[in-house]
Amino acid sequence: MIDLYYSPGSCALASHIALEEAEAEYTGHRVDFSQNQQQSADFLKVNPKGRVPALITDKGILTETPAALVYIAQTHPAANLAPMDDPFAFAQLQAFNSYLASTVHVAHAHKGRGSRWSDDESAWDSMKRKVPDSMTQCFRYIEDHAFVGPYALGDSYTVTDSYLYTVARWLAGDGVDTAQFPKVHAHMQMMANRPAVQRALTAEGVTA
Amino acid sequence: MIDLYYSPGSCALASHIALEEAEAEYTGHRVDFSQNQQQSADFLKVNPKGRVPALITDKGILTETPAALVYIAQTHPAANLAPMDDPFAFAQLQAFNSYLASTVHVAHAHKGRGSRWSDDESAWDSMKRKVPDSMTQCFRYIEDHAFVGPYALGDSYTVTDSYLYTVARWLAGDGVDTAQFPKVHAHMQMMANRPAVQRALTAEGVTA
Repeated sequence: MIDLYYSPGSCALASHIALEEAEAEYTGHRVDFSQNQQQSADFLKVNPKGRVPALITDKGILTETPAALVYIAQTHPAANLAPMDDPFAFAQLQAFNSYLASTVHVAHAHKGRGSRWSDDESAWDSMKRKVPDSMTQCFRYIEDHAFVGPYALGDSYTVTDSYLYTVARWLAGDGVDTAQFPKVHAHMQMMANRPAVQRALTAEGVTA
Repeated sequence: MIDLYYSPGSCALASHIALEEAEAEYTGHRVDFSQNQQQSADFLKVNPKGRVPALITDKGILTETPAALVYIAQTHPAANLAPMDDPFAFAQLQAFNSYLASTVHVAHAHKGRGSRWSDDESAWDSMKRKVPDSMTQCFRYIEDHAFVGPYALGDSYTVTDSYLYTVARWLAGDGVDTAQFPKVHAHMQMMANRPAVQRALTAEGVTA
């Protein structure tokens, strides 16, 4: 049994989709960022980082999307969500996830989280202005180099697909037209049609 | 056989140490960031991201430190560098690595890489000023919550130790006194005494 703490449409959606794909036994718990609930005393007891996703497992708390996704895959082998027994293929999955976490999500976060990296409000504005450019650069790299197709890593669906889809969903709001990335664009459409994705979106109350 | 592309003292040091701990067959290749060699046509053929580390394996290129570290561990099981068969313990390793990559390294990068996130030079200055504070916050979390001891994840040495050590080495240059983090401080000293760490530092021409 897993308890998933998420904010709707945040990076936690990747884990939410993966849990649905794995047909895992889990309960979702919404964390209301509009009320700054992630910084409440109760939530900080769950996750001292004050962020989502947080997965509460029988053995303890798990944070960080790349860790959560592989944990879900490894503990639900029947769903075949990660090539754990092929070190190079698994490393490619990990590299894609790590790029999404460390470069792409970080580029996106400069739109609304500038206070993490500067105390100067005018700097936050300049960070926000750069987001369409930096997100375009990230997805140019993904489109031209990382994405294999039809799934992110080739012929098999993996947890990376749920993560890529989750981050690609942010592009429109970041002022980036996905039509310039035909492979990513087609992937988004394919993902939106998967039942597991639809169940996770519905549970979070967001649309494809 | 692996070819490791690194810049001395960069996050690639974590992979360099892991290769030494694993007694892997590899060749190191220095990339001269002072000459912007990471953006040269030759290096971009190796790694279109223009970053280190890049590991060239028999099967192709691998990037991203969390991916590289687990790949080294998984392909050198005798060195026992990651608990691959214990999903929760492995997830904790992955979460620690992901935090170092996505939050701590990113906080540090705002000292010298502000142009990634803003086109305004005065914003770069404000980002630089925030680095001691944000790195202190990161290591406060590590000291109080993530670090188990004596090694990062408990009784067994793992690839996370090489990554934590690599990032903790940046603290002095970031204006953060490691003495306020006694567990991390003791870990740094222990790491500096490991023969594999000393071999990697010597190869890169940097000091503990």
